[in-house]
This record gives sequence, structure tokens and C-alpha cells, in this order.
Amino acid sequence: MKPTIRDVAKLAGVSISTVSRVMNAPETVVPEKRQRVQEAIERLRYKPNAFARGLIYKKSDTFGVMIPDIENPYYAGLLRGIQDAAAEMNHSVIICNTDRDRSRMLAYVRNLFEKQADGIIFASDSLHRELYDELKRSRLPFVLVSTDAPEYDAPSVDIDNEQAACEAVRHLIELGHREIGMIGFPVGNTISGAPRLAGFRRALAEAGLDHCASHVEFAAHRFEDACEAAGRLFVRAPQITAVFAASDEFAMGVIAYARDHGRSVPDQLSVVGFDDIRMARMFIPRLTTVEQPVYQIGVRAVHKLHELMVNGEVSVLHERLPHRLIVRESTAGLRV
Amino acid sequence: MKPTIRDVAKLAGVSISTVSRVMNAPETVVPEKRQRVQEAIERLRYKPNAFARGLIYKKSDTFGVMIPDIENPYYAGLLRGIQDAAAEMNHSVIICNTDRDRSRMLAYVRNLFEKQADGIIFASDSLHRELYDELKRSRLPFVLVSTDAPEYDAPSVDIDNEQAACEAVRHLIELGHREIGMIGFPVGNTISGAPRLAGFRRALAEAGLDHCASHVEFAAHRFEDACEAAGRLFVRAPQITAVFAASDEFAMGVIAYARDHGRSVPDQLSVVGFDDIRMARMFIPRLTTVEQPVYQIGVRAVHKLHELMVNGEVSVLHERLPHRLIVRESTAGLRV
Repeated sequence: MKPTIRDVAKLAGVSISTVSRVMNAPETVVPEKRQRVQEAIERLRYKPNAFARGLIYKKSDTFGVMIPDIENPYYAGLLRGIQDAAAEMNHSVIICNTDRDRSRMLAYVRNLFEKQADGIIFASDSLHRELYDELKRSRLPFVLVSTDAPEYDAPSVDIDNEQAACEAVRHLIELGHREIGMIGFPVGNTISGAPRLAGFRRALAEAGLDHCASHVEFAAHRFEDACEAAGRLFVRAPQITAVFAASDEFAMGVIAYARDHGRSVPDQLSVVGFDDIRMARMFIPRLTTVEQPVYQIGVRAVHKLHELMVNGEVSVLHERLPHRLIVRESTAGLRV
Repeated sequence: MKPTIRDVAKLAGVSISTVSRVMNAPETVVPEKRQRVQEAIERLRYKPNAFARGLIYKKSDTFGVMIPDIENPYYAGLLRGIQDAAAEMNHSVIICNTDRDRSRMLAYVRNLFEKQADGIIFASDSLHRELYDELKRSRLPFVLVSTDAPEYDAPSVDIDNEQAACEAVRHLIELGHREIGMIGFPVGNTISGAPRLAGFRRALAEAGLDHCASHVEFAAHRFEDACEAAGRLFVRAPQITAVFAASDEFAMGVIAYARDHGRSVPDQLSVVGFDDIRMARMFIPRLTTVEQPVYQIGVRAVHKLHELMVNGEVSVLHERLPHRLIVRESTAGLRV
């Protein structure tokens, strides 16, 4: 059973109105009492229910967005969608840059709880058990973005990563390539990692190219990692004529490595990326890539969070938005 | 003389404790009284002084960052510095994406005031009079970043834009170029616009190349604008062998345009950028550019804001951090 304000007052040995004052105007309560109440709130994990919250708490019209790396251009596009949708609702957005650090994530959730944020959007990182438990305990509504975690019962917005990867690799096969490699995210990454690798392997299997299934190297997150991974891939399988990169930044890393080692793209090597970040159109050659509707994903995440805050539930738990292959200049027919 | 809580109470015809409750627990005050108090606060522009604020207001440990375009990679680097410095101080950051819309900026300031933000960092856009007045009226401490506005008495963190631009153009001159063009920000842009143009012209004047001073085209903000501006520049002055671009994104636009029109960089055209965003190292060719210590600028801005919040003033009003020319692959000696 949920703890009530009555339980908190009882445990702290104070009146209900004192608990209320601690939450709303803590300066008016003597430090010693204040601390007893805060400890009781903490111990009971007390949080007013949605109705009471409106009465006791001020609504903050603020929500938090947790992202791993604000310098990653994928999140810039996402944040723009989130920002615009939030601004329309007169909500503020607190950005929490996690650096994928688990203790920092937990600290952010506690911090958002203390600041009386109305909810959390958790984007693009694996949702580990401890964090999930903390989110649940905080009773803050939350939505996962590009972080489909089917093992948890949490609302999410994403694309079909496996299918999208499969289509990217089919494109290379249709161009005549028979020796295809991949630069992927580590499989421990449940969003960009495992599903995109599965899509790569499915396309290969469909075309009878299973001998390529092991032509995979993994990179952590950034351009520089992908350059190094490309080096390992080309040493191991120099016969490769096409690469599926699990992100546009990885694709740029592969192309930069190839250029530095005398292989021009797309004449001697085709490369397809993933995401369609802004840079994909600015890079030379312009990247063939899988477009994620990243702005729309951000907008939908806000609307979903709002639905959750207002109704306490969402009509569609796991929502998938459409992706699209965009053929530009970094892929070409195999020349023998 | 600053209005006090007493003045507010008097004007609203209520007790001081009612004013305090309106600020801390508005639900406990009947709507009619609440409105009278809020109107009085608004009319008097009442804001508790720093000492009283600690007693009456809860400190929110939150500050707002206003930036024009979260998708611009320059701001991503800046936000990272801001985020990290804020996290160390256990402060949250509310991101306000202004889209350079004046009424949106004003609305953000009011919103941050209402949310009891502790301060504002205003980044990389011209500070117009109306906004300056609103910031002053709000009494929120604020720091300007990459927005040196010497006509206002506001603390700022920036680099020496004119000197940095001058050094970038000198580099082209030292490589033997005598026909040099520029893709700049509009001169109405008091940060990236006028000072960088002045630096371009100073370097030309030093070298007796004043005939190039009009080889300037302006672009709004993005890659696509710069592609078009490059088109205008090359039609007007086809003899140009080198271009100073006022941002890395502009440099990429110039290079993309040149590539599409059969001029390779750096063999037939040298291009120097500005900022050293992450993409400058990933682009092909890697960009020669002026490095701004953008992460450090973000960190310094937070520290300056903190100094202002704690002391009510800063020891150095206008702070300039060092820049540095980084020579990579997009510039080369003139070949005749």
C-alpha cells in the first residue's frame, strides 16, 4: 500500500501540516523537525498521489531528459523535437548529460525528484535494473526513447532497429556487393547494438551470404572508435567492398579511414550509415543512410509523457515510428 | 529604492505572511488574494534581496541557458562545459532553445523567473535592448557567453573574435594567397558578424590586399546558407583562391559547393573555418580552423554566474579566453 502523508507524520512524530510545510516552505520549520520529516519521506518513499500532488505540491511544469552525450548530433535533433513540444505546453526541460555513468544517472533521478519534476524522458541508453528500480521508486512518470526495453513495462518511442538495419544491408546486396562488413555498437547495447546486428545477419542470410556474418567489428560511440574499428575490419577481411555502419558517425569514421588508406568512397568502397543526422548531408561524400524521424521521436516522447502524467497510463505502450533508407553518394554498384 | 515584502503587502492590502505564502505555497491562499499579491509583485517588480531570498524563497539550484539553436554543434560543446560545471555544483540546467525569436526569449526569462531559477546564461546571440531590460527587471543574475555586449554593463565570457579572424586570414596570406574571399555572418550579429569581418579586413590591409575587402558574402547560420553564399561569391569573384569562413559549418558549405563545381580543396581552393567543432576533425578534408576553447567557455560561464550569485558582482567583467589556429588539411600553399 502506498504511504500517505499521515504515515509520514506518524513516523516523524509531527503533525500533517508540518509535513506539508516541509514540502512547501521548509524554511518555516525548525531544522531538527525538518530533518525528521525528510528522513521519514525518504524512508517511506512517500510521494503524494496525482490528485493530492496538485494540492500539496506545486506542479513544476518541468521535466528531465536524460541523454548520454550532448555532443552526439543524434541527441541534438532529438532535443529539438523535445524542446519544441515542451515549449508548446509551456514546460521547461532540464537536460541531464549522463556520460553513461550509472551513479550519475541515479543521482539525476533523485535530483529531479527533489526538484519536483513532473516526469522523465530517458533516451538512448540501456536501462539497467538499478536505474529502473530507482525510477519506479521515485514514482515519477517516465518514457523511454530509443531505449526499447521490452523486459520492463515502460512506455517507449523508437523505430524498428532490426528491420531498418536489414534494409540498409539489402541495399548493399542489391548493388551487387558480396563481401560486406559491419561496424556495430557493442551487443550489450540493447538498442543500437543487438538489433542492428541481427538485421545485418538477417539480410545476409536471406541472400546466402552467411560467410560475411563474422565480418563485424565493434566501436564504442564516437568517430575515432569507428576509425580504429575500420582498421581492424580491413586487416581481417581486406576483400570487403561494402560496409554497414550502425551510425552516421561510424560511417564517417569508416570513410575517413578508407580515404587515409587510399580507398575512395564510393568507387572502391560503399558505406551506408544510420540515423541521418544533419552532418550526413554535409559530409563529402553525402551519406547514404537510414533516416530516423528523430525530431518526431522527440515530439512523440513529450506527448507520451504528458499522456502518462494526465491519465496515469498510455494507450500504446511501445510505439514505433517509420524509418526510411535515403540513398545519396556513399554507396554505388560494385565495380569489378 | 528596492521594493520590500512590506511594500508588496501594503499594495495588495494583505499581511506579510500572506505574501510569503503566495510565494511558497500559493495553494494555501484563496485565489482572489493570491491574484492581488501576484499583481503587486508584478507591478513593483518585487524580488527578495539575496539574503532575504535565502529565507523566503527556496533556492532552486537551477539555472537557465538560452541558446539559439541546439542543433548547432558549437552549442553542443558549450553545453557540455556548462553541464559538467553545473553538475559539480549540484545545479540543474534548463535549456531554452530560442530559435532567435525575440518574443520567445522574453517568455523564457519570465518563465525562468517564475520557476525561481538562480540565474541565466545567455549564449551566442545579440542582446537586444528589450531583452536586456527584461533581464534587469527580473533581477536574475546573468552572464553573456560569446555575446560580448560592451554597451551593456553585463559580465561576459568570450574570445577575441577580431584578433582570431585576423590570424586565420594571415595564415592564408602566408600561404601565398592574394585573392581571398570571406563567408561571414551578417554584421548585425555583433559577435560573430562585425568583429570577424573587421579581423578579415585588418589582415588584408596589413598585407596591402585591400582590393579583396569587398569579396564578402553573408550567410544566415547554416550549412545550406553557406553553400548558396559561396555560389554568389564565386560568380562575383571567380579569381578567388582562398576563403575565410566565419564558422566551421560555413567552411563545410564552401567546400561542398566547390566540390560540386569541380574545384578540389585544398589543391584549387584553400578554406579556413572558425570554432573547431567536433566535425572539423571528421570532415574530409579535415578543416584548418580557429579553435575556440568552447568547453572551457562553458565552464567559466558557470563559475562566473556562481560568483555573481554569491557576491553580487564579478572580479573581471569581460573575460576573454585564448584561441588558437589549427592547421589541418583544408588549406595549402598557392599553386600557380
